[in-house]
Parts: sequence; structure tokens; C-alpha cells
Amino acid sequence: MSGQAEPVELHAALALARAEIEGALDMLLPIEEGDEARLFAAMRHAALGGGKRMRGFLVLEGAGQFTVARESALRVAAAIEMLHAYSLIHDDLPAMDDDDLRRGKPTCHIAFDEATAILAGDALQALAFQILSEEDTHADPAVRCELVRCLARAAGARGMCGGQMLDILSESATQAHTEAEVGRLQMMKTGRLIEFSAEAGAILGKAPAAQRHALALYGREVGAAFQIADDLLDLTSTPEETGKRTAKDAAAGKATLVALLGPERARSQAERLIEQATRHLDSFGDRANILRMLAQYVLGRRS
Amino acid sequence: MSGQAEPVELHAALALARAEIEGALDMLLPIEEGDEARLFAAMRHAALGGGKRMRGFLVLEGAGQFTVARESALRVAAAIEMLHAYSLIHDDLPAMDDDDLRRGKPTCHIAFDEATAILAGDALQALAFQILSEEDTHADPAVRCELVRCLARAAGARGMCGGQMLDILSESATQAHTEAEVGRLQMMKTGRLIEFSAEAGAILGKAPAAQRHALALYGREVGAAFQIADDLLDLTSTPEETGKRTAKDAAAGKATLVALLGPERARSQAERLIEQATRHLDSFGDRANILRMLAQYVLGRRS
Repeated sequence: MSGQAEPVELHAALALARAEIEGALDMLLPIEEGDEARLFAAMRHAALGGGKRMRGFLVLEGAGQFTVARESALRVAAAIEMLHAYSLIHDDLPAMDDDDLRRGKPTCHIAFDEATAILAGDALQALAFQILSEEDTHADPAVRCELVRCLARAAGARGMCGGQMLDILSESATQAHTEAEVGRLQMMKTGRLIEFSAEAGAILGKAPAAQRHALALYGREVGAAFQIADDLLDLTSTPEETGKRTAKDAAAGKATLVALLGPERARSQAERLIEQATRHLDSFGDRANILRMLAQYVLGRRS
Repeated sequence: MSGQAEPVELHAALALARAEIEGALDMLLPIEEGDEARLFAAMRHAALGGGKRMRGFLVLEGAGQFTVARESALRVAAAIEMLHAYSLIHDDLPAMDDDDLRRGKPTCHIAFDEATAILAGDALQALAFQILSEEDTHADPAVRCELVRCLARAAGARGMCGGQMLDILSESATQAHTEAEVGRLQMMKTGRLIEFSAEAGAILGKAPAAQRHALALYGREVGAAFQIADDLLDLTSTPEETGKRTAKDAAAGKATLVALLGPERARSQAERLIEQATRHLDSFGDRANILRMLAQYVLGRRS
């Protein structure tokens, strides 16, 4: 199936999730009023109106395997998308990747200024944790606490922030990177949050450990395949298609599997990851079909 | 008592708390090893080895009013100090206050670089929430969840980040600020976190709402007095005394109560705040004596 357009069923589920997540974010983000309106506007600029919402979609589909209220899953999806949006704001800063285009819009520090962008990222991170911890998430305190703990681990020094540090260091490294090093970097930088996104529905649904673990592994493999697809897109697509600058990785000397293995071997590896991911869903029934389709579709997208 | 050196009892309690909090931070921060060592080193640079630890001290003394294990209170104190350290890293960045000296050491982006400093701040924020949410905090999930929720609110867009936004906007404002506006700015930027620090021990101790509220109000008034003392110090002390650049507020046109009211009236207002703060402790017994002394001492410090 890879390389083809997504099937109608997956397309409809993605479109519905995108609209619902957008609605949840709109409701949960502060309204642009009062003296701090500039901060709220920057948060909304970065978090609303774009993105594939893959992380949020994984939360919703994961939750769909269990008895979880849609409203609860949407709050968790929105919290993870806020955390993802914060990471993009900070990654795009002049001191980091220095990007001016994201999701077809000026990046946050271009649309506002650097200080506002730093603060908007900081505030989005805090808001993500606030949302998970609140009673409105309609989960018992132990579940909310576990969600906070897992998100904090995925986002912190041994997850996303650590991965971004490795990514920055990789650009100035004089030695070639090994496949294992690049894999670890990607796993930390983007993999841990995607893994948690797939796992979050199971936490909400108080699923047995084996099912929670299976979804986490599915997320890990899909996330790794998604990263390879992203790097392939950076190589072969245009800014019009992706809404962000392309061909930047090679220019920056970034350590990607595509740079290391070449596009063909990287694509084969992504296909293997997708097969593995799908196998982790074997114990789930028909309700996991959308997740199976998502895995197949990862390599086919053009944006 | 104001204007005098702190009494021996307070001095001893502060010194003990500082040492214990330093130990807890040292244990909870990642060790500098592995490929991400640079990130861990930047986190440790910013969070260890300095600071008055007033927020952590308030947690410990607040917890001391109830039956709370010292170990639990120390974890919460360390988490709040990590969040405070992250806010200082980001405030000191070139795009924000552009400071090169903090606690007598080079600021994080000077000792490392801007990208590393941004990431170290981000990772410290995530770690603060992780620590509160973990079982090791030895509080039931509802208590841990409430701590996360309150810290997230104090740190976010309607707390610290919002206050910092107002502070930045105040520098370029053409209109004079009112006392109410400056008070709100300070309450958001530093007051909310100090208020939560004083309240956290009551949350850990599952205190009745009235006692929790009294400690929060104590923290609010002491925090406001502390801010005035800080602004007075900026005006009258040297970098050798404070370990950071001084006389910066006036140069930057910052909206402070000292700038607005003049040093004499600002000092009188701080004295009133200290009286009010002390009254909130009336329902507490002798165990609150250190908190009473702390309030008196706020105006006497030289660093």
C-alpha cells in the first residue's frame, strides 16, 4: 500500500480528528484579550491552524480501542499537540534551526519577535501539563498523574530536549555518525513523544499492561518510519507541498538515516518498521484498522 | 525588626534548607555523562550552586506546619527551584533581559550558548513536572496531581510567562504605568510562584482549606514585599553584593513600584505587606515562628 494515497476511511478519520483537535485547542488556549494579548496571540499562532495532528490522532485512535470518553481523549490530544507546538517554536528560533516558515505560515518569532516566541513556547509547555492534571480531563487522579509523568519524561532531558541537543551537536560533529547514534537521536527527539501519543489512550482506558505496551511499541515503530518519511520529503519535495523550507537537512549536515543510508535503503528500512508496527496490533480487533492503515500510509504522504 | 540582620534561628534554618535543597537538586538532576552531557551540564550550571532558595524554603516551612515527610517536601522544593531556575535562564537570554551575570556566575547562555540555554530551560521545566508527578514524591496521586496543576498555573500564560510578557511590553510602553498595573505584573511574574511555594506544604499535608488559603496569602504578601526589596536592592547595592548586574531596572525603564513610588514610599508599602503577611499566620502556632521571622527579614537583606 505504501506510496499510494490514503484510503477513504483513513482520510475521513484524519479529517475528523484534525477538526476536533483544532476545536479542542481553540477552546483550551487563552483568548486574545487583556494586556497579555500578545502572548496569547503567539500561542494561538503556533498551536492553531495547521499540522497533520498525527500525535493527536494517535491519542484518539489509541483511546478508541478502549472505553474512553471522546472528550477526555481530545483534551489529552490537545495537550500533546500543544507540547509539540512549543517544541517547534523553540526549534525554529534563530539560535536553533533558524526557520522562517512553518505549516505555510511565518514562524512564531517572525510573526511576533524572539522574546514573545520563547515565552509562548514556555507557556504552551506549562499549559500542556495543566490540562492533563485538571479534573476536566475526566480521569481519576492516578491516571492524570501517570499522563503527566509520561509526557514530562518524553519531553525532557532524556527525551525531546535531549534529542534536540544531540541534533545540534551532530551538525558540528567531525566524526561520521553511526546508524545506531542517528536512531537514538531520532528516537529521543521525536520518537518518545509519538510513542507516548500512541500509549496515552491505553493509559486513559486503564488498559492491561500488555496492550499498553503493544500500543507504545506500535507508536515507536510508526514514529521511526514517520521520521524517515519526513527526511525523504525534505530531500524530494518543495516548500509549497510541505509548508516549510526543504532540502535544509543536507545543507546543515544533519544526521538523518536518509543521509546515512541513502534514500533507497532508508525507504526499505521504513517499510520494515511499518511491518513491525502493524504486527504490534495483532492482538487488537477491527477497531485498530485505522491504526493499521495509518502505518501503511506513512510512506505515501507528500506533506 | 526590618533593616536588621536575620536572627540566629532564621539564619540556621535558611542555611540548613539551602544545603538540603542543594542536595536534593544534585540528586534529581541528570548526571553529566553520555552524548547529551552538555545539556545536563547546562541544567546543573543553572540550578545548582547558588540562590537564596526562598521558594524551596517556603515549601519546607509550609510543610513543617503539618505532618509531611521531609523527603516529600524536599522533592517539591527542588521541583519549584528547578522551575525558577528555568525562568531565570530564559529571562537572561539576549532576546529577553540580556544578562551575563547571575548568582555571581556567567549566565547559562554565556557559559554555554543560546541554543543550549534554551534547551536547558525547557528541560528543567519538564523535569519539575516529572518530579511532582512521580511516586517517589510519596504523596497520593490526587495530591501529586494538585501540585502539578497549581505549578502549571503559576508558571503559565496567566502566571509567570504572562508576567514576563507584561514586563517586556512595559519597557516599550509610552504611557506611565499605574500602581495597579505594576502590582498585577509583579504578582504574575514572581508572586504566583512564591504564593504556590508557601501553599505547597499545605497541599502535601492535606491541610484544611482555611489553613492552605492562609499560607497562600502569606506567600502572596511576602512575595510582593520581597519584590520591592529586590527592586530597592537593584537601586542601592553593587554587583559584588547581589551576584548580578544592578541598576538595570531604571536603565531599562522597567515598571517597578520603586520607580513609581520612590524608594521611601515603596519601603513603607513593603512594611505594610509584611504586617499583613504575618497576620495570616495568626491561626498557626509556634511552628510558624520561622515564617514570621522570614517576613520580618525580607527588607533587611543585602543580596
